[in-house]
Amino acid sequence: MSEDTSFIGLLKNKWNEGKFVCVGLDSEYSALPHASKKSESIEDNLVVFNLAIVDATANLVNSYKINSAFYESLGPEGWSALIKTVKYIKTTYKGILVILDAKRADIGSTNLGYIKMAFDEVGVDAITVHPYLGMDALQPFLDLKDKGILVLARTSNPGSGEFQDLEFKGKALYEIVAEHVAKKWNKNNNCGLVVGGTFPEDLKKVREAAPNLPILVPGIGAQGGDLKGVLKNGLDKNKQGLIINSSRGIIFASSKGDFADRAREETEKLHKQIQEIIKNV
Amino acid sequence: MSEDTSFIGLLKNKWNEGKFVCVGLDSEYSALPHASKKSESIEDNLVVFNLAIVDATANLVNSYKINSAFYESLGPEGWSALIKTVKYIKTTYKGILVILDAKRADIGSTNLGYIKMAFDEVGVDAITVHPYLGMDALQPFLDLKDKGILVLARTSNPGSGEFQDLEFKGKALYEIVAEHVAKKWNKNNNCGLVVGGTFPEDLKKVREAAPNLPILVPGIGAQGGDLKGVLKNGLDKNKQGLIINSSRGIIFASSKGDFADRAREETEKLHKQIQEIIKNV
Repeated sequence: MSEDTSFIGLLKNKWNEGKFVCVGLDSEYSALPHASKKSESIEDNLVVFNLAIVDATANLVNSYKINSAFYESLGPEGWSALIKTVKYIKTTYKGILVILDAKRADIGSTNLGYIKMAFDEVGVDAITVHPYLGMDALQPFLDLKDKGILVLARTSNPGSGEFQDLEFKGKALYEIVAEHVAKKWNKNNNCGLVVGGTFPEDLKKVREAAPNLPILVPGIGAQGGDLKGVLKNGLDKNKQGLIINSSRGIIFASSKGDFADRAREETEKLHKQIQEIIKNV
Repeated sequence: MSEDTSFIGLLKNKWNEGKFVCVGLDSEYSALPHASKKSESIEDNLVVFNLAIVDATANLVNSYKINSAFYESLGPEGWSALIKTVKYIKTTYKGILVILDAKRADIGSTNLGYIKMAFDEVGVDAITVHPYLGMDALQPFLDLKDKGILVLARTSNPGSGEFQDLEFKGKALYEIVAEHVAKKWNKNNNCGLVVGGTFPEDLKKVREAAPNLPILVPGIGAQGGDLKGVLKNGLDKNKQGLIINSSRGIIFASSKGDFADRAREETEKLHKQIQEIIKNV
Protein backbone atom coordinates (compact mmCIF):
# COMPACT_ATOMS: atom_id res chain seq x y z
CA MET A 1 0.00 0.00 0.00
CA SER A 2 1.34 3.42 -0.86
CA GLU A 3 1.96 5.86 1.93
CA ASP A 4 -0.83 8.31 2.76
CA THR A 5 0.70 11.73 2.12
CA SER A 6 -2.54 13.70 2.43
CA PHE A 7 -2.83 16.41 5.05
CA ILE A 8 -4.99 14.25 7.27
CA GLY A 9 -2.79 11.21 6.74
CA LEU A 10 0.40 13.01 7.71
CA LEU A 11 -1.35 14.67 10.63
CA LYS A 12 -2.41 11.28 11.99
CA ASN A 13 1.19 10.08 11.77
CA LYS A 14 2.23 12.98 13.96
CA TRP A 15 -0.57 12.36 16.46
CA ASN A 16 0.55 8.74 16.63
CA GLU A 17 3.99 10.09 17.58
CA GLY A 18 2.27 12.08 20.35
CA LYS A 19 2.82 15.44 18.69
CA PHE A 20 0.10 18.05 19.01
CA VAL A 21 1.97 21.34 18.96
CA CYS A 22 1.79 23.72 16.02
CA VAL A 23 4.28 26.59 16.16
CA GLY A 24 2.97 29.80 14.61
CA LEU A 25 5.56 31.66 12.54
CA ASP A 26 3.84 34.99 13.12
CA SER A 27 7.18 36.59 12.46
CA GLU A 28 6.30 40.28 12.60
CA TYR A 29 9.40 41.90 11.23
CA SER A 30 9.64 44.78 13.70
CA ALA A 31 9.53 42.31 16.59
CA LEU A 32 12.35 40.05 15.38
CA PRO A 33 15.36 39.83 17.68
CA HIS A 34 18.29 42.01 16.73
CA ALA A 35 20.38 38.85 16.46
CA SER A 36 18.44 37.73 13.39
CA LYS A 37 18.74 41.07 11.59
CA LYS A 38 22.31 40.91 10.43
CA SER A 39 21.64 41.42 6.73
CA GLU A 40 20.51 44.51 4.84
CA SER A 41 17.81 42.35 3.29
CA ILE A 42 14.46 42.09 5.07
CA GLU A 43 13.79 38.87 3.21
CA ASP A 44 17.05 37.25 4.29
CA ASN A 45 16.60 38.27 7.93
CA LEU A 46 13.09 36.93 8.04
CA VAL A 47 14.16 33.62 6.52
CA VAL A 48 17.13 33.34 8.93
CA PHE A 49 14.80 33.89 11.89
CA ASN A 50 12.17 31.41 10.71
CA LEU A 51 14.69 28.69 9.88
CA ALA A 52 16.35 29.04 13.27
CA ILE A 53 12.97 28.61 14.97
CA VAL A 54 12.10 25.65 12.76
CA ASP A 55 15.43 23.89 13.32
CA ALA A 56 15.06 24.35 17.07
CA THR A 57 11.51 22.99 17.28
CA ALA A 58 10.87 20.59 14.39
CA ASN A 59 11.12 17.32 16.27
CA LEU A 60 8.50 18.48 18.80
CA VAL A 61 5.68 19.62 16.52
CA ASN A 62 3.13 18.29 14.07
CA SER A 63 2.98 21.49 12.05
CA TYR A 64 3.89 25.11 11.51
CA LYS A 65 1.21 27.72 10.98
CA ILE A 66 2.19 30.76 8.98
CA ASN A 67 -0.07 33.78 9.15
CA SER A 68 0.23 35.46 5.78
CA ALA A 69 -0.55 38.94 7.14
CA PHE A 70 2.96 39.25 8.58
CA TYR A 71 4.51 38.48 5.19
CA GLU A 72 2.13 40.35 2.89
CA SER A 73 2.78 43.49 4.89
CA LEU A 74 6.35 43.46 3.58
CA GLY A 75 5.39 43.32 -0.09
CA PRO A 76 7.10 41.03 -2.62
CA GLU A 77 10.09 40.51 -0.28
CA GLY A 78 7.74 39.18 2.38
CA TRP A 79 6.20 36.75 -0.09
CA SER A 80 9.62 35.49 -1.09
CA ALA A 81 10.51 34.94 2.56
CA LEU A 82 7.26 33.03 3.06
CA ILE A 83 7.93 30.81 0.06
CA LYS A 84 11.53 30.11 1.13
CA THR A 85 10.44 29.26 4.67
CA VAL A 86 7.83 26.78 3.50
CA LYS A 87 10.17 25.21 0.98
CA TYR A 88 12.78 24.73 3.70
CA ILE A 89 10.35 23.04 6.06
CA LYS A 90 8.89 20.76 3.39
CA THR A 91 12.25 19.64 2.05
CA THR A 92 14.13 19.37 5.36
CA TYR A 93 11.49 17.90 7.64
CA LYS A 94 9.43 15.38 5.69
CA GLY A 95 6.06 14.70 7.21
CA ILE A 96 5.77 17.95 9.13
CA LEU A 97 2.80 19.98 7.93
CA VAL A 98 2.60 23.63 7.00
CA ILE A 99 -0.68 25.49 7.41
CA LEU A 100 -1.13 28.83 5.69
CA ASP A 101 -3.30 30.88 8.02
CA ALA A 102 -4.52 33.15 5.27
CA LYS A 103 -8.24 33.22 6.11
CA ARG A 104 -9.19 33.43 2.46
CA ALA A 105 -12.54 32.84 0.76
CA ASP A 106 -13.93 34.23 -2.46
CA ILE A 107 -16.56 33.02 -4.88
CA GLY A 108 -16.05 29.98 -7.07
CA SER A 109 -13.33 30.19 -9.65
CA THR A 110 -11.70 33.21 -8.01
CA ASN A 111 -10.57 30.83 -5.31
CA LEU A 112 -8.43 29.11 -7.93
CA GLY A 113 -6.13 32.12 -7.63
CA TYR A 114 -5.78 31.57 -3.89
CA ILE A 115 -5.33 27.84 -4.43
CA LYS A 116 -2.56 28.46 -6.92
CA MET A 117 -0.98 30.89 -4.45
CA ALA A 118 -1.16 28.59 -1.43
CA PHE A 119 -0.48 25.17 -2.91
CA ASP A 120 1.60 25.87 -6.04
CA GLU A 121 3.48 29.11 -5.33
CA VAL A 122 3.91 28.77 -1.57
CA GLY A 123 3.51 25.00 -1.30
CA VAL A 124 1.70 24.53 2.01
CA ASP A 125 -0.40 21.52 3.04
CA ALA A 126 -3.44 23.35 4.39
CA ILE A 127 -5.14 26.73 4.39
CA THR A 128 -7.61 28.45 6.70
CA VAL A 129 -10.83 29.82 5.16
CA HIS A 130 -13.81 31.96 6.18
CA PRO A 131 -17.15 30.12 6.10
CA TYR A 132 -19.42 33.11 5.36
CA LEU A 133 -19.85 32.49 1.62
CA GLY A 134 -20.94 28.89 2.02
CA MET A 135 -19.95 25.55 0.54
CA ASP A 136 -20.62 26.23 -3.13
CA ALA A 137 -18.24 29.20 -3.12
CA LEU A 138 -15.53 27.16 -1.46
CA GLN A 139 -15.94 24.09 -3.66
CA PRO A 140 -12.57 24.62 -5.44
CA PHE A 141 -10.89 24.31 -2.02
CA LEU A 142 -13.04 21.34 -1.01
CA ASP A 143 -12.10 19.52 -4.22
CA LEU A 144 -8.45 19.33 -3.13
CA LYS A 145 -8.40 15.80 -1.79
CA ASP A 146 -4.87 15.80 -0.39
CA LYS A 147 -4.89 19.24 1.19
CA GLY A 148 -6.37 20.48 4.45
CA ILE A 149 -9.17 23.04 4.39
CA LEU A 150 -9.55 24.50 7.86
CA VAL A 151 -12.77 26.45 8.28
CA LEU A 152 -13.14 29.17 10.90
CA ALA A 153 -15.90 28.19 13.32
CA ARG A 154 -15.27 29.97 16.63
CA THR A 155 -12.55 32.63 16.60
CA SER A 156 -10.45 33.57 19.60
CA ASN A 157 -11.19 37.32 19.73
CA PRO A 158 -13.23 38.59 22.71
CA GLY A 159 -16.07 39.84 20.49
CA SER A 160 -16.29 36.78 18.26
CA GLY A 161 -19.83 36.22 19.45
CA GLU A 162 -21.23 39.20 17.56
CA PHE A 163 -22.39 36.91 14.76
CA GLN A 164 -20.96 33.53 15.77
CA ASP A 165 -23.23 33.36 18.83
CA LEU A 166 -26.45 34.26 17.04
CA GLU A 167 -28.85 31.39 17.58
CA PHE A 168 -30.87 29.77 14.87
CA LYS A 169 -33.32 27.14 16.12
CA GLY A 170 -31.41 26.75 19.37
CA LYS A 171 -27.98 26.46 17.81
CA ALA A 172 -25.30 29.11 17.61
CA LEU A 173 -23.95 30.02 14.19
CA TYR A 174 -20.50 28.58 15.03
CA GLU A 175 -22.12 25.23 15.86
CA ILE A 176 -24.05 25.28 12.61
CA VAL A 177 -20.86 26.02 10.70
CA ALA A 178 -19.14 23.09 12.44
CA GLU A 179 -22.09 20.81 11.67
CA HIS A 180 -22.26 21.79 8.00
CA VAL A 181 -18.53 21.30 7.55
CA ALA A 182 -18.64 17.88 9.24
CA LYS A 183 -21.77 16.61 7.51
CA LYS A 184 -21.78 18.31 4.11
CA TRP A 185 -18.44 19.87 3.25
CA ASN A 186 -16.15 17.00 4.22
CA LYS A 187 -16.87 14.64 1.33
CA ASN A 188 -13.15 14.35 0.54
CA ASN A 189 -12.09 13.86 4.16
CA ASN A 190 -10.01 17.03 3.90
CA CYS A 191 -11.83 19.49 6.18
CA GLY A 192 -10.99 20.73 9.61
CA LEU A 193 -12.23 23.49 11.90
CA VAL A 194 -10.65 26.40 13.71
CA VAL A 195 -11.74 27.12 17.27
CA GLY A 196 -10.04 29.72 19.45
CA GLY A 197 -8.40 28.34 22.57
CA THR A 198 -9.97 31.17 24.54
CA PHE A 199 -13.39 29.46 24.44
CA PRO A 200 -12.96 25.87 25.68
CA GLU A 201 -16.67 25.49 26.41
CA ASP A 202 -17.50 26.26 22.80
CA LEU A 203 -14.86 23.82 21.68
CA LYS A 204 -16.88 21.12 23.44
CA LYS A 205 -19.91 21.94 21.30
CA VAL A 206 -17.83 22.00 18.14
CA ARG A 207 -16.37 18.58 18.99
CA GLU A 208 -19.90 17.27 19.48
CA ALA A 209 -20.94 18.67 16.10
CA ALA A 210 -17.82 17.35 14.38
CA PRO A 211 -16.62 14.24 16.24
CA ASN A 212 -14.03 13.24 13.63
CA LEU A 213 -12.61 16.48 12.26
CA PRO A 214 -9.19 17.86 13.11
CA ILE A 215 -9.51 21.11 15.02
CA LEU A 216 -6.87 23.80 14.92
CA VAL A 217 -6.81 25.69 18.21
CA PRO A 218 -5.00 29.02 18.13
CA GLY A 219 -4.81 31.31 21.11
CA ILE A 220 -2.80 29.11 23.45
CA GLY A 221 0.06 31.02 25.03
CA ALA A 222 0.12 34.78 24.43
CA GLN A 223 -3.66 34.96 24.07
CA GLY A 224 -4.14 33.07 27.33
CA GLY A 225 -6.14 30.06 26.14
CA ASP A 226 -6.80 27.36 28.73
CA LEU A 227 -4.82 24.28 27.70
CA LYS A 228 -6.48 21.83 30.08
CA GLY A 229 -9.98 22.88 29.03
CA VAL A 230 -8.96 22.74 25.39
CA LEU A 231 -7.71 19.16 25.63
CA LYS A 232 -10.55 17.97 27.82
CA ASN A 233 -13.16 19.36 25.45
CA GLY A 234 -11.44 19.09 22.12
CA LEU A 235 -9.78 15.67 21.91
CA ASP A 236 -11.58 13.11 19.77
CA LYS A 237 -12.44 9.56 20.83
CA ASN A 238 -8.86 8.46 20.05
CA LYS A 239 -7.46 11.20 22.28
CA GLN A 240 -6.21 12.88 19.13
CA GLY A 241 -7.77 15.36 16.71
CA LEU A 242 -6.18 18.62 17.89
CA ILE A 243 -3.59 20.97 16.46
CA ILE A 244 -2.55 23.14 19.39
CA ASN A 245 -1.08 26.39 18.17
CA SER A 246 1.13 28.81 20.03
CA SER A 247 2.82 31.62 18.14
CA ARG A 248 4.26 34.66 19.91
CA GLY A 249 4.63 32.78 23.20
CA ILE A 250 7.17 30.57 21.46
CA ILE A 251 8.85 32.54 18.71
CA PHE A 252 9.27 35.71 20.76
CA ALA A 253 10.08 33.99 24.05
CA SER A 254 13.38 35.85 23.97
CA SER A 255 14.34 39.02 22.15
CA LYS A 256 18.01 38.18 22.47
CA GLY A 257 20.51 35.92 20.73
CA ASP A 258 19.11 32.87 22.53
CA PHE A 259 15.71 33.22 20.83
CA ALA A 260 15.88 29.82 19.14
CA ASP A 261 16.89 28.00 22.32
CA ARG A 262 14.14 29.74 24.25
CA ALA A 263 11.64 28.90 21.50
CA ARG A 264 12.62 25.26 21.84
CA GLU A 265 12.21 25.42 25.62
CA GLU A 266 8.73 26.89 25.32
CA THR A 267 7.73 24.37 22.67
CA GLU A 268 9.01 21.52 24.79
CA LYS A 269 7.15 22.86 27.82
CA LEU A 270 3.90 23.00 25.87
CA HIS A 271 4.53 19.56 24.35
CA LYS A 272 5.13 18.03 27.78
CA GLN A 273 2.14 19.79 29.35
CA ILE A 274 -0.04 18.31 26.62
CA GLN A 275 1.44 14.82 27.14
CA GLU A 276 0.81 15.09 30.86
CA ILE A 277 -2.78 16.30 30.51
CA ILE A 278 -3.64 13.66 27.91
CA LYS A 279 -2.42 10.90 30.20
CA ASN A 280 -4.92 12.04 32.80
CA VAL A 281 -7.88 12.94 30.60
CA MET B 1 -12.22 74.42 3.68
CA SER B 2 -9.76 71.74 2.71
CA GLU B 3 -10.76 69.17 0.14
CA ASP B 4 -12.24 65.91 1.42
CA THR B 5 -9.87 63.22 0.17
CA SER B 6 -11.38 60.37 2.18
CA PHE B 7 -12.75 57.32 0.39
CA ILE B 8 -16.33 58.41 0.96
CA GLY B 9 -15.57 62.04 0.02
CA LEU B 10 -13.96 61.11 -3.28
CA LEU B 11 -16.72 58.62 -4.00
CA LYS B 12 -19.35 61.32 -3.54
CA ASN B 13 -17.49 63.54 -6.00
CA LYS B 14 -17.73 60.78 -8.58
CA TRP B 15 -21.41 60.19 -7.88
CA ASN B 16 -21.97 63.92 -8.34
CA GLU B 17 -20.37 63.52 -11.78
CA GLY B 18 -22.89 60.74 -12.47
CA LYS B 19 -20.32 57.97 -12.32
CA PHE B 20 -21.34 54.65 -10.82
CA VAL B 21 -19.26 52.10 -12.69
CA CYS B 22 -16.41 50.21 -11.08
CA VAL B 23 -14.27 48.22 -13.48
CA GLY B 24 -12.87 45.04 -11.98
CA LEU B 25 -9.29 44.32 -12.93
CA ASP B 26 -9.72 40.56 -12.44
CA SER B 27 -6.84 40.14 -14.84
CA GLU B 28 -6.39 36.38 -14.78
CA TYR B 29 -3.09 35.94 -16.54
CA SER B 30 -4.01 32.92 -18.67
CA ALA B 31 -7.00 34.84 -20.05
CA LEU B 32 -5.12 37.97 -21.12
CA PRO B 33 -5.25 38.74 -24.85
CA HIS B 34 -2.22 37.67 -26.82
CA ALA B 35 -1.75 41.31 -27.81
CA SER B 36 -0.82 42.22 -24.23
CA LYS B 37 1.71 39.43 -23.83
CA LYS B 38 4.59 40.81 -25.83
CA SER B 39 7.19 40.64 -23.07
CA GLU B 40 8.90 37.66 -21.46
CA SER B 41 7.92 39.12 -18.11
CA ILE B 42 4.57 38.13 -16.61
CA GLU B 43 4.69 41.23 -14.47
CA ASP B 44 5.23 43.56 -17.42
CA ASN B 45 2.49 41.96 -19.50
CA LEU B 46 -0.01 42.19 -16.67
CA VAL B 47 0.81 45.84 -16.08
CA VAL B 48 0.58 46.62 -19.81
CA PHE B 49 -2.86 45.01 -19.96
CA ASN B 50 -4.18 46.75 -16.83
CA LEU B 51 -2.91 50.16 -17.86
CA ALA B 52 -4.47 49.84 -21.31
CA ILE B 53 -7.83 49.01 -19.71
CA VAL B 54 -7.48 51.87 -17.23
CA ASP B 55 -6.53 54.43 -19.88
CA ALA B 56 -9.49 53.36 -21.99
CA THR B 57 -12.07 53.58 -19.22
CA ALA B 58 -10.91 56.06 -16.57
CA ASN B 59 -13.19 58.96 -17.48
CA LEU B 60 -16.28 56.75 -17.19
CA VAL B 61 -15.78 55.17 -13.77
CA ASN B 62 -15.76 56.00 -10.08
CA SER B 63 -13.35 53.24 -9.20
CA TYR B 64 -11.36 50.16 -10.06
CA LYS B 65 -11.72 46.99 -8.06
CA ILE B 66 -8.74 44.68 -7.99
CA ASN B 67 -9.26 41.14 -6.80
CA SER B 68 -6.01 40.13 -5.16
CA ALA B 69 -6.47 36.40 -5.92
CA PHE B 70 -5.50 36.94 -9.56
CA TYR B 71 -2.23 38.59 -8.51
CA GLU B 72 -1.28 36.47 -5.51
CA SER B 73 -1.53 33.40 -7.71
CA LEU B 74 1.51 34.69 -9.63
CA GLY B 75 3.74 35.06 -6.58
CA PRO B 76 5.98 38.07 -5.98
CA GLU B 77 5.74 39.12 -9.66
CA GLY B 78 1.98 39.32 -9.34
CA TRP B 79 2.28 41.49 -6.26
CA SER B 80 4.63 43.84 -8.09
CA ALA B 81 2.15 44.09 -10.97
CA LEU B 82 -0.63 44.87 -8.51
CA ILE B 83 1.40 47.59 -6.84
CA LYS B 84 2.42 49.16 -10.18
CA THR B 85 -1.17 49.13 -11.42
CA VAL B 86 -2.48 50.87 -8.32
CA LYS B 87 0.33 53.41 -8.34
CA TYR B 88 -0.41 54.26 -11.97
CA ILE B 89 -4.11 54.78 -11.33
CA LYS B 90 -3.56 56.90 -8.22
CA THR B 91 -0.95 59.14 -9.79
CA THR B 92 -2.48 59.47 -13.27
CA TYR B 93 -6.18 59.75 -12.46
CA LYS B 94 -6.58 61.81 -9.30
CA GLY B 95 -9.88 61.26 -7.56
CA ILE B 96 -10.55 57.83 -9.00
CA LEU B 97 -10.72 55.21 -6.29
CA VAL B 98 -9.06 51.83 -6.05
CA ILE B 99 -10.69 49.04 -4.06
CA LEU B 100 -8.66 46.00 -3.10
CA ASP B 101 -11.08 43.10 -3.19
CA ALA B 102 -8.99 40.99 -0.86
CA LYS B 103 -11.75 39.72 1.46
CA ARG B 104 -9.42 39.75 4.44
CA ALA B 105 -10.19 39.57 8.15
CA ASP B 106 -8.10 38.32 11.04
CA ILE B 107 -8.09 39.04 14.73
CA GLY B 108 -7.02 42.37 16.15
CA SER B 109 -3.43 43.35 15.63
CA THR B 110 -2.85 40.73 12.93
CA ASN B 111 -5.00 42.93 10.72
CA LEU B 112 -2.26 45.56 10.95
CA GLY B 113 -0.31 43.34 8.56
CA TYR B 114 -3.14 43.44 6.04
CA ILE B 115 -3.55 47.17 6.57
CA LYS B 116 0.12 47.76 5.89
CA MET B 117 -0.16 45.56 2.81
CA ALA B 118 -3.26 47.25 1.38
CA PHE B 119 -2.74 50.88 2.28
CA ASP B 120 1.05 51.28 2.53
CA GLU B 121 2.54 48.67 0.19
CA VAL B 122 -0.21 48.59 -2.44
CA GLY B 123 -1.75 52.00 -1.78
CA VAL B 124 -5.47 51.44 -2.37
CA ASP B 125 -8.36 53.53 -0.98
CA ALA B 126 -10.57 50.70 0.26
CA ILE B 127 -10.57 47.01 1.07
CA THR B 128 -13.23 44.31 1.29
CA VAL B 129 -13.48 42.30 4.53
CA HIS B 130 -15.33 39.26 5.87
CA PRO B 131 -17.71 40.02 8.77
CA TYR B 132 -17.55 36.63 10.54
CA LEU B 133 -15.09 37.65 13.28
CA GLY B 134 -17.10 40.67 14.38
CA MET B 135 -16.37 44.32 15.05
CA ASP B 136 -13.72 44.01 17.75
CA ALA B 137 -11.51 41.91 15.49
CA LEU B 138 -11.84 44.39 12.65
CA GLN B 139 -11.28 47.50 14.78
CA PRO B 140 -7.85 48.23 13.23
CA PHE B 141 -9.60 48.52 9.86
CA LEU B 142 -12.48 50.56 11.29
CA ASP B 143 -10.02 53.01 12.84
CA LEU B 144 -8.82 54.10 9.37
CA LYS B 145 -10.86 57.27 8.99
CA ASP B 146 -9.93 58.10 5.41
CA LYS B 147 -10.14 54.60 3.97
CA GLY B 148 -13.13 52.57 2.88
CA ILE B 149 -13.92 49.31 4.70
CA LEU B 150 -16.39 47.32 2.63
CA VAL B 151 -17.97 44.48 4.55
CA LEU B 152 -19.39 41.40 2.80
CA ALA B 153 -23.11 41.18 3.56
CA ARG B 154 -24.74 39.20 0.76
CA THR B 155 -22.41 37.50 -1.68
CA SER B 156 -23.26 36.79 -5.32
CA ASN B 157 -22.68 33.00 -5.36
CA PRO B 158 -25.76 30.78 -5.82
CA GLY B 159 -25.30 29.07 -2.44
CA SER B 160 -24.60 32.24 -0.46
CA GLY B 161 -27.71 31.57 1.62
CA GLU B 162 -26.17 28.60 3.44
CA PHE B 163 -25.34 30.81 6.40
CA GLN B 164 -26.30 34.29 5.16
CA ASP B 165 -30.01 33.37 5.04
CA LEU B 166 -30.20 31.84 8.50
CA GLU B 167 -32.83 33.79 10.41
CA PHE B 168 -32.37 35.21 13.86
CA LYS B 169 -35.50 36.80 15.35
CA GLY B 170 -37.02 37.19 11.91
CA LYS B 171 -33.96 38.70 10.28
CA ALA B 172 -31.50 36.98 7.99
CA LEU B 173 -27.83 36.98 8.95
CA TYR B 174 -26.93 39.22 6.00
CA GLU B 175 -29.46 41.81 7.18
CA ILE B 176 -28.07 41.65 10.70
CA VAL B 177 -24.56 42.16 9.33
CA ALA B 178 -25.78 45.18 7.35
CA GLU B 179 -27.53 46.60 10.41
CA HIS B 180 -24.53 46.15 12.69
CA VAL B 181 -22.19 47.76 10.18
CA ALA B 182 -24.55 50.71 9.70
CA LYS B 183 -25.38 51.26 13.37
CA LYS B 184 -22.27 50.13 15.25
CA TRP B 185 -19.25 49.75 13.00
CA ASN B 186 -19.52 52.99 11.05
CA LYS B 187 -18.39 55.43 13.75
CA ASN B 188 -15.78 56.90 11.42
CA ASN B 189 -18.09 57.15 8.41
CA ASN B 190 -15.79 54.80 6.52
CA CYS B 191 -17.86 51.64 6.15
CA GLY B 192 -19.65 50.23 3.17
CA LEU B 193 -21.29 46.92 2.30
CA VAL B 194 -20.94 44.37 -0.46
CA VAL B 195 -24.09 42.85 -1.95
CA GLY B 196 -24.03 40.60 -5.00
CA GLY B 197 -25.92 41.93 -8.02
CA THR B 198 -27.49 38.50 -8.42
CA PHE B 199 -29.84 39.12 -5.47
CA PRO B 200 -31.62 42.47 -6.07
CA GLU B 201 -34.41 41.63 -3.61
CA ASP B 202 -31.88 41.17 -0.84
CA LEU B 203 -30.23 44.42 -1.83
CA LYS B 204 -33.51 46.14 -0.96
CA LYS B 205 -33.36 44.79 2.57
CA VAL B 206 -29.73 45.78 2.93
CA ARG B 207 -30.55 49.31 1.76
CA GLU B 208 -33.30 49.47 4.38
CA ALA B 209 -30.90 48.31 7.07
CA ALA B 210 -28.18 50.70 5.92
CA PRO B 211 -29.83 53.73 4.28
CA ASN B 212 -26.66 55.79 4.07
CA LEU B 213 -23.85 53.37 3.38
CA PRO B 214 -22.14 52.94 0.02
CA ILE B 215 -22.86 49.52 -1.40
CA LEU B 216 -20.47 47.75 -3.75
CA VAL B 217 -22.41 45.52 -6.13
CA PRO B 218 -20.33 42.91 -7.92
CA GLY B 219 -21.84 40.35 -10.27
CA ILE B 220 -23.16 42.70 -12.95
CA GLY B 221 -22.17 41.51 -16.42
CA ALA B 222 -20.59 38.06 -16.62
CA GLN B 223 -22.39 36.80 -13.50
CA GLY B 224 -25.74 38.00 -14.91
CA GLY B 225 -26.83 40.46 -12.22
CA ASP B 226 -30.00 42.43 -12.94
CA LEU B 227 -29.00 46.08 -13.37
CA LYS B 228 -32.48 47.57 -13.21
CA GLY B 229 -33.36 45.70 -10.04
CA VAL B 230 -30.04 46.64 -8.51
CA LEU B 231 -30.55 50.36 -9.10
CA LYS B 232 -34.20 50.35 -8.11
CA ASN B 233 -33.47 48.58 -4.84
CA GLY B 234 -30.02 49.84 -4.04
CA LEU B 235 -29.89 53.58 -4.69
CA ASP B 236 -30.00 55.78 -1.63
CA LYS B 237 -32.34 58.73 -1.10
CA ASN B 238 -30.05 60.94 -3.20
CA LYS B 239 -30.16 58.44 -6.06
CA GLN B 240 -26.54 57.66 -5.31
CA GLY B 241 -24.84 55.19 -2.97
CA LEU B 242 -23.88 52.43 -5.40
CA ILE B 243 -20.62 51.17 -6.82
CA ILE B 244 -21.64 49.00 -9.76
CA ASN B 245 -18.92 46.54 -10.59
CA SER B 246 -18.37 44.63 -13.79
CA SER B 247 -15.14 42.74 -14.32
CA ARG B 248 -14.79 40.01 -16.95
CA GLY B 249 -17.66 41.43 -19.04
CA ILE B 250 -15.53 44.53 -19.57
CA ILE B 251 -11.87 43.56 -19.45
CA PHE B 252 -12.29 40.38 -21.49
CA ALA B 253 -14.86 41.78 -23.94
CA SER B 254 -12.38 41.01 -26.68
CA SER B 255 -9.49 38.56 -26.74
CA LYS B 256 -7.89 40.39 -29.65
CA GLY B 257 -5.80 43.50 -30.16
CA ASP B 258 -8.88 45.72 -29.76
CA PHE B 259 -9.40 44.63 -26.13
CA ALA B 260 -9.01 48.13 -24.72
CA ASP B 261 -11.41 49.71 -27.23
CA ARG B 262 -13.95 46.97 -26.55
CA ALA B 263 -13.50 47.42 -22.81
CA ARG B 264 -14.28 51.10 -23.26
CA GLU B 265 -17.38 50.30 -25.31
CA GLU B 266 -18.70 47.92 -22.66
CA THR B 267 -17.96 50.39 -19.88
CA GLU B 268 -19.71 53.17 -21.78
CA LYS B 269 -22.70 50.92 -22.43
CA LEU B 270 -23.01 50.10 -18.73
CA HIS B 271 -22.48 53.75 -17.77
CA LYS B 272 -25.25 54.90 -20.15
CA GLN B 273 -27.63 52.15 -19.08
CA ILE B 274 -27.19 53.27 -15.49
CA GLN B 275 -27.77 56.92 -16.44
CA GLU B 276 -30.93 55.99 -18.31
CA ILE B 277 -32.34 53.82 -15.54
CA ILE B 278 -31.59 56.42 -12.85
CA LYS B 279 -33.48 59.08 -14.81
CA ASN B 280 -36.57 56.91 -14.65
CA VAL B 281 -36.28 55.49 -11.13
